[in-house]
Amino acid sequence: MKYIEILREGERVNEVYLCKHRQSAVTKNGKAYENLILQDKTGTLDAKIWEPDSQGIDDFERFDYISVTGDVTSFQGALQLNVKRVRKAQPGEYEPGDYLPVSSRDVDEMYGELKDIISSVETPCLKMLLSKFFLEDKEFEKRFKFHSAAKTVHHGFVGGLLEHTLGVTKLCEAFCRQYPMLNRDLLLSAAMFHDIGKLEELSVFPENDYTDDGQLLGHIVMGTEWVGEKIREIPEFPKKLASELKHCILAHHGELEYGSPKKPALMEAVALSFADNVDAKMETLKEAFASIPEGNTEWLGYNRLLESNIRKTSR
Amino acid sequence: MKYIEILREGERVNEVYLCKHRQSAVTKNGKAYENLILQDKTGTLDAKIWEPDSQGIDDFERFDYISVTGDVTSFQGALQLNVKRVRKAQPGEYEPGDYLPVSSRDVDEMYGELKDIISSVETPCLKMLLSKFFLEDKEFEKRFKFHSAAKTVHHGFVGGLLEHTLGVTKLCEAFCRQYPMLNRDLLLSAAMFHDIGKLEELSVFPENDYTDDGQLLGHIVMGTEWVGEKIREIPEFPKKLASELKHCILAHHGELEYGSPKKPALMEAVALSFADNVDAKMETLKEAFASIPEGNTEWLGYNRLLESNIRKTSR
Amino acid sequence: MKYIEILREGERVNEVYLCKHRQSAVTKNGKAYENLILQDKTGTLDAKIWEPDSQGIDDFERFDYISVTGDVTSFQGALQLNVKRVRKAQPGEYEPGDYLPVSSRDVDEMYGELKDIISSVETPCLKMLLSKFFLEDKEFEKRFKFHSAAKTVHHGFVGGLLEHTLGVTKLCEAFCRQYPMLNRDLLLSAAMFHDIGKLEELSVFPENDYTDDGQLLGHIVMGTEWVGEKIREIPEFPKKLASELKHCILAHHGELEYGSPKKPALMEAVALSFADNVDAKMETLKEAFASIPEGNTEWLGYNRLLESNIRKTSR
Amino acid sequence: MKYIEILREGERVNEVYLCKHRQSAVTKNGKAYENLILQDKTGTLDAKIWEPDSQGIDDFERFDYISVTGDVTSFQGALQLNVKRVRKAQPGEYEPGDYLPVSSRDVDEMYGELKDIISSVETPCLKMLLSKFFLEDKEFEKRFKFHSAAKTVHHGFVGGLLEHTLGVTKLCEAFCRQYPMLNRDLLLSAAMFHDIGKLEELSVFPENDYTDDGQLLGHIVMGTEWVGEKIREIPEFPKKLASELKHCILAHHGELEYGSPKKPALMEAVALSFADNVDAKMETLKEAFASIPEGNTEWLGYNRLLESNIRKTSR
Amino acid sequence: MKYIEILREGERVNEVYLCKHRQSAVTKNGKAYENLILQDKTGTLDAKIWEPDSQGIDDFERFDYISVTGDVTSFQGALQLNVKRVRKAQPGEYEPGDYLPVSSRDVDEMYGELKDIISSVETPCLKMLLSKFFLEDKEFEKRFKFHSAAKTVHHGFVGGLLEHTLGVTKLCEAFCRQYPMLNRDLLLSAAMFHDIGKLEELSVFPENDYTDDGQLLGHIVMGTEWVGEKIREIPEFPKKLASELKHCILAHHGELEYGSPKKPALMEAVALSFADNVDAKMETLKEAFASIPEGNTEWLGYNRLLESNIRKTSR
Amino acid sequence: MKYIEILREGERVNEVYLCKHRQSAVTKNGKAYENLILQDKTGTLDAKIWEPDSQGIDDFERFDYISVTGDVTSFQGALQLNVKRVRKAQPGEYEPGDYLPVSSRDVDEMYGELKDIISSVETPCLKMLLSKFFLEDKEFEKRFKFHSAAKTVHHGFVGGLLEHTLGVTKLCEAFCRQYPMLNRDLLLSAAMFHDIGKLEELSVFPENDYTDDGQLLGHIVMGTEWVGEKIREIPEFPKKLASELKHCILAHHGELEYGSPKKPALMEAVALSFADNVDAKMETLKEAFASIPEGNTEWLGYNRLLESNIRKTSR
Repeated sequence: MKYIEILREGERVNEVYLCKHRQSAVTKNGKAYENLILQDKTGTLDAKIWEPDSQGIDDFERFDYISVTGDVTSFQGALQLNVKRVRKAQPGEYEPGDYLPVSSRDVDEMYGELKDIISSVETPCLKMLLSKFFLEDKEFEKRFKFHSAAKTVHHGFVGGLLEHTLGVTKLCEAFCRQYPMLNRDLLLSAAMFHDIGKLEELSVFPENDYTDDGQLLGHIVMGTEWVGEKIREIPEFPKKLASELKHCILAHHGELEYGSPKKPALMEAVALSFADNVDAKMETLKEAFASIPEGNTEWLGYNRLLESNIRKTSR
Repeated sequence: MKYIEILREGERVNEVYLCKHRQSAVTKNGKAYENLILQDKTGTLDAKIWEPDSQGIDDFERFDYISVTGDVTSFQGALQLNVKRVRKAQPGEYEPGDYLPVSSRDVDEMYGELKDIISSVETPCLKMLLSKFFLEDKEFEKRFKFHSAAKTVHHGFVGGLLEHTLGVTKLCEAFCRQYPMLNRDLLLSAAMFHDIGKLEELSVFPENDYTDDGQLLGHIVMGTEWVGEKIREIPEFPKKLASELKHCILAHHGELEYGSPKKPALMEAVALSFADNVDAKMETLKEAFASIPEGNTEWLGYNRLLESNIRKTSR
Repeated sequence: MKYIEILREGERVNEVYLCKHRQSAVTKNGKAYENLILQDKTGTLDAKIWEPDSQGIDDFERFDYISVTGDVTSFQGALQLNVKRVRKAQPGEYEPGDYLPVSSRDVDEMYGELKDIISSVETPCLKMLLSKFFLEDKEFEKRFKFHSAAKTVHHGFVGGLLEHTLGVTKLCEAFCRQYPMLNRDLLLSAAMFHDIGKLEELSVFPENDYTDDGQLLGHIVMGTEWVGEKIREIPEFPKKLASELKHCILAHHGELEYGSPKKPALMEAVALSFADNVDAKMETLKEAFASIPEGNTEWLGYNRLLESNIRKTSR
Repeated sequence: MKYIEILREGERVNEVYLCKHRQSAVTKNGKAYENLILQDKTGTLDAKIWEPDSQGIDDFERFDYISVTGDVTSFQGALQLNVKRVRKAQPGEYEPGDYLPVSSRDVDEMYGELKDIISSVETPCLKMLLSKFFLEDKEFEKRFKFHSAAKTVHHGFVGGLLEHTLGVTKLCEAFCRQYPMLNRDLLLSAAMFHDIGKLEELSVFPENDYTDDGQLLGHIVMGTEWVGEKIREIPEFPKKLASELKHCILAHHGELEYGSPKKPALMEAVALSFADNVDAKMETLKEAFASIPEGNTEWLGYNRLLESNIRKTSR
Repeated sequence: MKYIEILREGERVNEVYLCKHRQSAVTKNGKAYENLILQDKTGTLDAKIWEPDSQGIDDFERFDYISVTGDVTSFQGALQLNVKRVRKAQPGEYEPGDYLPVSSRDVDEMYGELKDIISSVETPCLKMLLSKFFLEDKEFEKRFKFHSAAKTVHHGFVGGLLEHTLGVTKLCEAFCRQYPMLNRDLLLSAAMFHDIGKLEELSVFPENDYTDDGQLLGHIVMGTEWVGEKIREIPEFPKKLASELKHCILAHHGELEYGSPKKPALMEAVALSFADNVDAKMETLKEAFASIPEGNTEWLGYNRLLESNIRKTSR
Repeated sequence: MKYIEILREGERVNEVYLCKHRQSAVTKNGKAYENLILQDKTGTLDAKIWEPDSQGIDDFERFDYISVTGDVTSFQGALQLNVKRVRKAQPGEYEPGDYLPVSSRDVDEMYGELKDIISSVETPCLKMLLSKFFLEDKEFEKRFKFHSAAKTVHHGFVGGLLEHTLGVTKLCEAFCRQYPMLNRDLLLSAAMFHDIGKLEELSVFPENDYTDDGQLLGHIVMGTEWVGEKIREIPEFPKKLASELKHCILAHHGELEYGSPKKPALMEAVALSFADNVDAKMETLKEAFASIPEGNTEWLGYNRLLESNIRKTSR
């Protein structure tokens, strides 16, 4: 397959892409045309259908996989596809996995690591609770492996929710080794549950956008409520432990102004909010620096999450 | 009964009070004594047992109703009771209702008003949900009538939760009359549910203090989760309406930094957050001015909730 | 008359509009043309004179009513008028009331409601003061009925100042019913005066922009000073009441950072600042949702006044 | 006269002081006594009347000048006067000027400097306006010379308002020399008027506390309104200049959150707000360091106005 | 020479300019062209090379002085140069001083004033330290005279660092005259050193942009460290005085959030931070008003440094 | 030795303690007495000398080790020592290590761990720089082992600076394992240097208070400058690496308002600021919970560093 990131000006393209966006428009001269955004897992590409009524331009819709024929041109420094022919592709003509940004790590391997950590949890009721989600519920597992952790910022790719959850959990393990006063089982459980509400907050790929519930309620409250529901199915779950676990999830954004309705009040809640923040910032920088060659120390300008100008370190 | 607010220096007292606080201490000369705080519904009174080992000083504990004999003295401008005899009072010697601050309005009358509003709600599933709490659950009704709405600030008295809930609901009714675009049934339901989480956030009188769950989870999240649970018992409850109702409860503090995990995004959520704020501030001023005689326009100093110096208006 | 909001692509137009904006420009090819913004009470429309030197293009200026002939085209999703002929319209060819955004309510009816409220004020000196502005000064009445309450945000239309003032005053009436401790006469008077400074802060339509004094002094201080001047004409006006009334006006934005030089310190000042805020936010949402069909629950994105993403409630 | 600042433990005192504060109290043993605060221009002194009913203790009230006889003792590191005899002093027994904190500079000399600056103002209408206040109104002059500029912070002494006004005006003169684009007449006039509202905001000595109007309206608005009134008596005063002058007064606190309803928008308003701030901070430090010996570089702890720990500079 | 600020539409130009920016682009039709920004000391000009491959278009690079032939056109209200011929200019064809924005004051005269102030410093070790930088180090003097004080805001021109430093120092002199408690030698030394770190923070003209060290360390810390190094070469320099001087430099931005790691704690540090702020704001306004004719009181919109809408004062 | 933490009411004590504080005072009856605070490594104890002029009360000063004889009493819930005899202790009568709060870990062992990490650094110039401080400079090692990391908050004990530095460095190691993009040598070096400025910011025990330089310059700038000085002794140290290392130190507080003059702009600077924050907060909680028995889940009230009420987790 010819991926978007390797296209060059002047090429003729004949390939299936995912149509992420479609909008009709009119040129200054009053001629109708179509604006498209095409996507595969390596990036996105602007495309124009200058003659939408010509032969060879068939019907299709946003989020269809489409087979396009056209020429790569360059406009104001960016590549653009001048579409000559387009039609909806048939299942079998394409491999869905090629069209979405994906984690650079293998999702099954990562899920395996998560399972290993679950098996190291000793408190029976916590282990039971984790099993209800991560081990016994196959539908949950499937969704959890496929979901992103964000719409646009860090971990906004297939497997992103899993990769971030694993990263946070492993940081928490490191914290437990260094600060033995931490309740390891509570902290690791909270880490694995902290973002499960994102399964409801963001729609699945290829849309990957905020849901109505996501905007109204948010992943913090939805995740807490979900965990609360499952806990009620475990009669022997201690009430105090349940509240502590839910507190850790509620407080994981660390500050009221970041959407946590409570500030971290337990040592584990403090640790979890740090782990979440560290993994988010490290991944943000990793993604920002991904395409910068080693040794390039140019400044990249202002990064909103870091609230600072940033650059790659010399080495 | 001889209420605390009418005691005068020099009186001998022989009465039953609630013991709100008890602590042992030592004078500069090394003599042990006891610090008490006595309470009835009109206020509190410092009391000292200077001779804790003398005859007539029987055993009792914090939150007991105690029969005390002693003399009212004055120390640094405040009254103090010098306790000579004390013993635990027997049920029948006192009327619990005399010992807690209570709403100036009749709780049954207020609850009746709330029921009238419920009967005016037309949307069946909302009416059904309201009934499950306010009409069918007698234990809920009893708790709801007795609870306060706060530990120390406005509405911190028996019936306070009911009085505040009714006040907010009636403001919302007024808003609906003025802004017909508001969904009346949604707004009134949200108003009646907005603070039910306080039943779990604050312990019952006479303690009336934050519970463990109150500190870890807060009334906003607990109330939302509680409403969510009951909604699941009504299969035909529309999912979107459920999320909108829960959003109104979540967002009723209006700002993230006041503990709402979401800002109001619906017209009804905006209206509810204003109604809550208006009723809280009006009651705060009412309580602050309660003991100020008509026509007295002395400044009362800084009020933390209002974030301003305040005074009563001339009239 | 053919209103802007009902124009469709492809139509030929022959109508009088208000010219809100006019600017000369040059195409990429170096050809001069004219950018216009046309306005009537239903909205605005971009227009282009591609041949400014051709016959049929007469002289006119910004804020003139102009008779235009041209074709409606569509450019980048928005309509545009391609002007073929244009000339200044003669008085009699148009009805000024058709060209400005206006309140959906009848201004005389609203003014009548305001007068009714004034007649319910019992304190003689306040009633006298209100009369001096709203009843006796016909020039004031005329300006007050025609003015907007804002340049761009809520109530930015003819009659907007009146509609907002009436809305705030009626909310204050509702507050008085619920909180009898409020001094009704003081609060309602303050409500009716709270924004009269906007008559000086904003220029009249069609300009409706900040005046020099508006920027230098602001409506809060100008309104307070104006009321102060008139009070000096009423010798028996109690000094304390005068200061309380002026305080309510000064403090009606509620917070120093919103331009009030004092925080509300009186119960009536607190109530007024809430009423102003409630009416502003409700109207903002009403205007934002005005063109959204019933049942459409799409998210409208970030609203600056609400500081939140917003959407219409399902119903 | 024996000033408070030179009293030493063990002395017998027989002197007239101003009674700034008086309150009845009761010892732990139940004995009534009186707490006084005595004042002269060098400071204040706690005093106790342990035997308020004894012979020699006559009637007097707060703000009376009282003749006291007593012994200087030391309690917890501070001096205290044990009062044996006290009576109201007769006019003639004391010199009021000895009992209030006063400017270290001669008020007539400072007022002369202010007059010299007024005579250098060239714009006729501004000169006329300044004359109406500072030259022609002898009652104004008398009040202006006697008033303080603050209740507790910098310039809280007799002559303080004049000293601060002169300091600010002279800084503005220096700014004019360095930045010729500044309109000297406007800036110096605004400087001289900027705090005249304090004549109404603070009561006169010895009380020197916020007035009711001071709390409700504040010196910024009252001063602006006062200047506005006088301007209306000068028909030829240009409207734009009037607004600019009033803007400078309104904006002199520099930030909305410091009580200015407008941010400085003119070069002169910016300059005035800096001059006010510089003079306030320099005087605050001067007063804080006044009693610190040369060469002592001990840290004085946190200063609220400077928002920093401070110390005197080594030299 | 034909300066950019006097070019008019329709002119043919044949002149040498500095090429500040160069970028290749493609028209909508797919044709390659070049975007340039040309600069001389009077301003900048957009230029286009529509036929980059035609004869007469020679090689050149960003920051080259280039000889261009072309026609001045107007596009969307701004002038644009349509370049027909271009080549790298030879040294001798141009005078570098004509191509950079420069101080309106003579740099040697300003430097002379600075030297006069140095000669008035009496404390030997401070005088010695000043000499090491400003008198003995000719390379430093040359750089100091040529540097700007900012990338884009106030004093962003050749000589700007010197002009700002002199302005701040003279304000400090005025403060010393008015507040004799200030240590004049310490304050004036700190004023002269306060921005020397900008020599490292910003690259030299024509680039005048943040350096890598500027972004990583900042001029405040670099300047402090530089002064610290030189102080170590003066063995008799008192340690306390050294720390006080360095504190004044560190604290000169006045607030932690403006990048000072310490708040001003000494009277001189407070004075310096004010002088820096006053000079910056006055110069900002001077530059903003530079091209506004006398008497024009149009509002200029929001100014980011002043955080307010601004306008020129009427006169 | 009889440590303070095991003293009980009623005991007679005959022991050497460090005198941390001494102040003369007067009882209400006018009798002079002495307030002392005694200290050993287990805590502090209030002590009173009621008869300072009696035999057996010898001369001594603050920070002396004193041999005291007295009785343990209890006053208002706290123990107090009633001192009968006191004299300065002789060297040999006490072991200084017994009188200061100390790290619970062995300082030599921790220092050994730090050396092991240094030996794992591969970049020669960084290793050389680390050696100059931690390996070659024995005086530095001695001071570094003895110093605290704070006056009052976390790690305020002998060895605290070392324990905190080691904790931060080990967290950074964990971050490097999880995020391989981090430059390990740079990050670990920055971690070990990040707080060395505290050697100058805080005086040594037993005083352990802010120094004059600490208040004027702060540990962030002093540490950066110190590292900069040593780097200049290593000619081959790359300039860019030097700036990156210094940037990490400068930015380690993470936010301008916490005293860092630059926000973290490099991945290592971000990681270091998190590691510092995590270790500080974990230690704060550890110290807060140190004396709370396992299983006690009482709320401890508001913790200023955490900005939340806190409690120990149930287990």
